[in-house]
Amino acid sequence: MRDEMRRLIELDRERTLFTHIGAILGWDQETYMPEKAIEERAEQLALIEGYTHEKAVLPEIRDLLAALEADAGLSETEKAYLRVARREFDREIKLPSTLVTELARRTSLSQAAWVQARKENDFGKFAPHLQTMVDLNREMAQALRPGTEQPYDALLDLYEIGSTEDGVAAVFADMERELVKILVKIESRPPVEDAFLRRKVSAAAQARMSDYFMGAIGFDRGRGRLDTTAHPFTTTLGRDDIRITTRYLEDYFPSSVFSTIHEGGHALYEMGIDPGAEFRNTRLADAASMAIHESQSRLWENIIGRSAPFWRKHYPSIKAMAEGALDDIGQEAFLKGVNKVEPSLIRTEADEVTYGLHVIARFDLEAALISGSLAVADLPEAWNKKMKDLLGLDVPNDAVGCLQDIHWSMGSFGYFPSYALGNLYAAQFWDAMKAELPGLEDMIAAGDVSQARAWLAAKVHKPGTSYLPEELVQKVTGAPLDASHFTRYLDEKYAAIYGY
Amino acid sequence: MRDEMRRLIELDRERTLFTHIGAILGWDQETYMPEKAIEERAEQLALIEGYTHEKAVLPEIRDLLAALEADAGLSETEKAYLRVARREFDREIKLPSTLVTELARRTSLSQAAWVQARKENDFGKFAPHLQTMVDLNREMAQALRPGTEQPYDALLDLYEIGSTEDGVAAVFADMERELVKILVKIESRPPVEDAFLRRKVSAAAQARMSDYFMGAIGFDRGRGRLDTTAHPFTTTLGRDDIRITTRYLEDYFPSSVFSTIHEGGHALYEMGIDPGAEFRNTRLADAASMAIHESQSRLWENIIGRSAPFWRKHYPSIKAMAEGALDDIGQEAFLKGVNKVEPSLIRTEADEVTYGLHVIARFDLEAALISGSLAVADLPEAWNKKMKDLLGLDVPNDAVGCLQDIHWSMGSFGYFPSYALGNLYAAQFWDAMKAELPGLEDMIAAGDVSQARAWLAAKVHKPGTSYLPEELVQKVTGAPLDASHFTRYLDEKYAAIYGY
Repeated sequence: MRDEMRRLIELDRERTLFTHIGAILGWDQETYMPEKAIEERAEQLALIEGYTHEKAVLPEIRDLLAALEADAGLSETEKAYLRVARREFDREIKLPSTLVTELARRTSLSQAAWVQARKENDFGKFAPHLQTMVDLNREMAQALRPGTEQPYDALLDLYEIGSTEDGVAAVFADMERELVKILVKIESRPPVEDAFLRRKVSAAAQARMSDYFMGAIGFDRGRGRLDTTAHPFTTTLGRDDIRITTRYLEDYFPSSVFSTIHEGGHALYEMGIDPGAEFRNTRLADAASMAIHESQSRLWENIIGRSAPFWRKHYPSIKAMAEGALDDIGQEAFLKGVNKVEPSLIRTEADEVTYGLHVIARFDLEAALISGSLAVADLPEAWNKKMKDLLGLDVPNDAVGCLQDIHWSMGSFGYFPSYALGNLYAAQFWDAMKAELPGLEDMIAAGDVSQARAWLAAKVHKPGTSYLPEELVQKVTGAPLDASHFTRYLDEKYAAIYGY
Repeated sequence: MRDEMRRLIELDRERTLFTHIGAILGWDQETYMPEKAIEERAEQLALIEGYTHEKAVLPEIRDLLAALEADAGLSETEKAYLRVARREFDREIKLPSTLVTELARRTSLSQAAWVQARKENDFGKFAPHLQTMVDLNREMAQALRPGTEQPYDALLDLYEIGSTEDGVAAVFADMERELVKILVKIESRPPVEDAFLRRKVSAAAQARMSDYFMGAIGFDRGRGRLDTTAHPFTTTLGRDDIRITTRYLEDYFPSSVFSTIHEGGHALYEMGIDPGAEFRNTRLADAASMAIHESQSRLWENIIGRSAPFWRKHYPSIKAMAEGALDDIGQEAFLKGVNKVEPSLIRTEADEVTYGLHVIARFDLEAALISGSLAVADLPEAWNKKMKDLLGLDVPNDAVGCLQDIHWSMGSFGYFPSYALGNLYAAQFWDAMKAELPGLEDMIAAGDVSQARAWLAAKVHKPGTSYLPEELVQKVTGAPLDASHFTRYLDEKYAAIYGY
């Protein structure tokens, strides 16, 4: 390896150290930090973000990139790394460091305000912070693409390279049509019984279930852990320190079960990235994209985690842990219950059919917030209207309405589409995996997910950012992204459950 | 305030932010970090320590100090700040940054190795790390005082300015003589019954007791929290983020009760430091010294926390929380039990008389380790001999012997004397407080410690580093440090308990 490459990696790793330190501060803020510490925490985060940015835009990096790009003798991995390093440098250099630190400071305060506002069901408390997040994100979009009239595109690109509002809108229009078709078929059948899922299960019992499922999917406890937060998430505090969170709703235990599996899927991805020892803790060891990330969480949560084979193995254990709440419920009934399709208010607890409609709502709303066609003050009303139009629901209050998700409080505008794209990738990966691993569903029914995990690790996780998302899906499945895998998966699944 | 002062404070605050960020990383390592994350955590800590040091030795600070020192018009507080800033700059500038980062990296690894070695009772696993800690501390001593033949003095000075091995040895010789006198009187009397303290109390019940006592002493939960670790400690993650830890031994619940009150005393000190809003998060808002720090923890743990008035108020509550373990034990018997004097193996659980002997043992041993007259490999034997000589005890294994304390694993050589000095300061502060607050013990018996807390905050906590420890004790008590307060306190206390 050339000295310039070595040096580029060294600088990249120092930046990564700062990234991980920032993640530790952020994780602590969400999990254990005492309330009054928030002001200084915001300063600490701003300081770390400032250094992270500074490390990413060193003039030395520009010189190293130029020297290496002129070299014809690089390995394929080195070339891939160089592409990523160039792309990220060119992106970060456009961001003024004052904007980066201001965003970090304001985000920390905004998240804390969101937690309070959600708890107290008081949108007014959060509104000024949301306004700041919108303003700073618009400013970031202008910095990334000076003079752009589509600032939302610049933000979408941060999560899914090359994606645009028009492109996503076209995919979503098709998706909405297909989802509604399936929904109509389901609604033609008698509803599934799921009231038993609302029976009380203590937080302690749910914690045992979460721990059980971490084991069941092969979460490496030596390299991560589970805690509780207002909103479940996964965060990377170090290459060997991947943490997930969940929340325990005593009157709806499936929430913690499926969010633990969901975040566990994210964690398995992070734990599996390994483009070679030389590239550890470099940008080559990042996730390919947020949609690819969501493909891993949704694959584990839904395609595996809500499947009949999975529960054939695990239902008896969960029944035994449920403090009597499932004593009179058979496996078949439980499986149907956790797959019940019905429009509902909370995205993270939505079924697989209506989930996409939640995402479409958020996509439309955040695009409007960023373009300016929707004012922050009008968000609750606009949210409630979307829920009525797309899901036919009345929203009783903002806590279960526009305050339910953490994303906007973190200034993540453009992230939501990743969830729906993740579903599409997940179904396509799943079809490829099934074709390559005969007897996969039998293995899952026997409690053995090691081959599934190994397949995902080798094919999807390991390369990190070596491939663009579209290259990755082509390489792994032999075809470009094709939404029909997802709709076929849904249609077959619900035909079995609802008998249509 | 002059621009130079403002700028000096600004730079100092950035350094403090890094200090607090390092504390977050360290706290997380001890509380929640998954095992395999340790290697990268060591790198993260080294990075942060490196920046902390760099911020402390900026050439700009030298210029600012010189400009301000030439100014005759500074306020008293500004002058005090300038003295501290000068002292710390002159100290830190002597430390090469390579040493600082190496020490941080090695300390993190050493602490993790210590936790394992202690758990497995395997000194051999810890020995190479201890050797590194000794070597790096010797190197630090030489950097601080080039050519010194008393490297331990340079380390003592880090915790208690101006203290020397000879000076401490002289104080300790007197103290040992007095402690032994009291011990002889106690041993002339029938032993106190305390076997009931070994009855099982669950960790959950102990956690409720700890929470209760945090409330009882006035710990501000909005500015801190309690977690569990291998060794109890207090750490400052932010001006409004002071965290304490304890451990729950199910067969000895007083351990968590008194360590929570002890660490709570440290936390009240950190929470009370306030030399003025302009000096927030500067070095003027540090603790005056480690001995002063220990005076606060030991005052709360022992002088208040093991006193008859304190338990008059709290015993009924604790009895009710003890899951039946205290049902047949009266308040008087309990008070005697938790004040039982008897040589024992574990320092943190030692009574107030033999505690000083534990400190003397560690002082002798660490001085010998640093001077080189004791080899690391010979530590277990030397430790066991000390315990025999000073306490008459045989040490069954290293886990309850030379592996019991965290300090050397953290490279803290020179800290232990602070505990014994802290006892002396504590007793002297206590006498002053009693003289100024009539009815103090009645208030404590009524569960009201607000006046005691306010007195300590105003007199001892608030000034931070405005005064040297010897100036502070003079200012607060009207006299220089005088060990007779402590021995008189002990003698009166144990005369009552043992009836000699």
